[in-house]
Amino acid sequence: MQDQLQGVFAPVITPFDREDHPDAHRFVKLCRWLLSRNAGLAMFGTNSEANSLSLVERRGLLDAALAAGLAPGRMLPGTGACAIPEAVELTRHAVDAGCAGALMLPPFYYKGVGDDGLFEYYARVIDRVASERLRVCLNHIPQLSGVPISHALIERLLARYPGTVVGIKDSAGDGANVEAMLARFPGFAVFPASEAMLARALPLGAAGCISATANIQPGAIAEHIARWRELGMEQRHRRVEAVRLAMQAYPMIPALKAVIAHCLGDAAWRRVRPPLELLSDTAERGVTAALAALDFTMPGLADA
Amino acid sequence: MQDQLQGVFAPVITPFDREDHPDAHRFVKLCRWLLSRNAGLAMFGTNSEANSLSLVERRGLLDAALAAGLAPGRMLPGTGACAIPEAVELTRHAVDAGCAGALMLPPFYYKGVGDDGLFEYYARVIDRVASERLRVCLNHIPQLSGVPISHALIERLLARYPGTVVGIKDSAGDGANVEAMLARFPGFAVFPASEAMLARALPLGAAGCISATANIQPGAIAEHIARWRELGMEQRHRRVEAVRLAMQAYPMIPALKAVIAHCLGDAAWRRVRPPLELLSDTAERGVTAALAALDFTMPGLADA
Repeated sequence: MQDQLQGVFAPVITPFDREDHPDAHRFVKLCRWLLSRNAGLAMFGTNSEANSLSLVERRGLLDAALAAGLAPGRMLPGTGACAIPEAVELTRHAVDAGCAGALMLPPFYYKGVGDDGLFEYYARVIDRVASERLRVCLNHIPQLSGVPISHALIERLLARYPGTVVGIKDSAGDGANVEAMLARFPGFAVFPASEAMLARALPLGAAGCISATANIQPGAIAEHIARWRELGMEQRHRRVEAVRLAMQAYPMIPALKAVIAHCLGDAAWRRVRPPLELLSDTAERGVTAALAALDFTMPGLADA
Repeated sequence: MQDQLQGVFAPVITPFDREDHPDAHRFVKLCRWLLSRNAGLAMFGTNSEANSLSLVERRGLLDAALAAGLAPGRMLPGTGACAIPEAVELTRHAVDAGCAGALMLPPFYYKGVGDDGLFEYYARVIDRVASERLRVCLNHIPQLSGVPISHALIERLLARYPGTVVGIKDSAGDGANVEAMLARFPGFAVFPASEAMLARALPLGAAGCISATANIQPGAIAEHIARWRELGMEQRHRRVEAVRLAMQAYPMIPALKAVIAHCLGDAAWRRVRPPLELLSDTAERGVTAALAALDFTMPGLADA
């Protein structure tokens, strides 16, 4: 694995075909476009409906992206799973593929588990993958996992696995936690899960962001991260934020899919896998109108 | 699948060997003993650490129980999974094995999902398994799944899949919900997750219970269910309740394992898989002393 855990990563949304199978062709197309817009690929994240995919499906989509020639050094696939053997298999697959890192949820069924148990979970996965090339990015998303990643746990993991446990995605939306981690763990790659936090977090050393809306505005977020020190960027930032706020008014995953479907004139993109639900027609009209008012487009996607 | 969804079912705890693999030999031994004490086998439930097992491991343990000649008509394996293809595979495997039913968690990663999405999840699994022999028992355990099973959802599933969706385990510990379901859905097999609720629920028509402590006192709970109408049972019920309360003072899964390890003089039983943690020595001494004070034993287990 390579040390490219910085910048913007898109938790790539997962298209499904008519028979509810992951649609590798459409998936690779979106991945290729995201890379062309300077976003890395955090495929198999929460926004990817990764936990609604089987282990075999996750492996298959990664293989499809590799077979299409996409750069593994720009990939940060989600490999967490409730069951250690499955997390080991997915993580080893990512390492073998040469991915930049593995984004690892904690096991998320049992609640109220202690740091000892969580440490042991990560330790067993890392020990069994047993590769110097492994780079683990933790996934702190307590509102869905129910299992927060404490600073004490990070400290223990960094002490035992320096150079392997290298970062964290903070999806809790708590700026104070992001700031505290940046202060306490110098050199640790902290990724807020929203571009809204970049203005505050980049000057403190944040590595970038892993954001839902990076699926549709990757280039603008990448530019924000690359050029935040420059003067005169405020107007561009406001536009990025306006798009994010427009999206946030709707259920994020179906709304992202509806926007891509709309931009491509390809209704197949709208499909989600249960338990998620299709965006309602009303909501779809609402979100596309809101983005149209911002002159939103996804340039180049049709030809990617 | 057969219509034997009544009585007590034990969510069979899962032993692990030195290399952290499921220990089929010890598992079958406990299953055989539970059957001999008139408990059915709700293997791969929450207390079984089922979500910490890989799909392959779950299939393997069920196959081991079948190969040992245990009666599939007394089995109610957990087959829920976040990913529909995996739930389909596990459920089909249970149907093919001739199991009495399949205990199905809702998909438990996304929170705040609507009944439409949950209905569609169950519908897709049932439609794809496509067997008249399938019997589904829903699993309402919102404190861990984060996804409650509403009465409106039950109503829709019963209307679409009469004879297939046949029951529910209620692990929420809310007597009012158990009573309300019994009143609203006559003939629906409602299993409280604690024997403590039997005295209240059996007269209202509960099917039995699926209870953690059925792993260690299956016979006494089975007797309670079979003979609740008889006079003079109060003293026995108090004893069952005393054992349950003694267990409830400790983390349930490691405590159940420690008790079995103690009764068999077989320390291997203590192992849990992360994120769960071993019972502390202090807690182990506490729980075994509490049970000793109740003259608790597991007669016949050593020879099962």
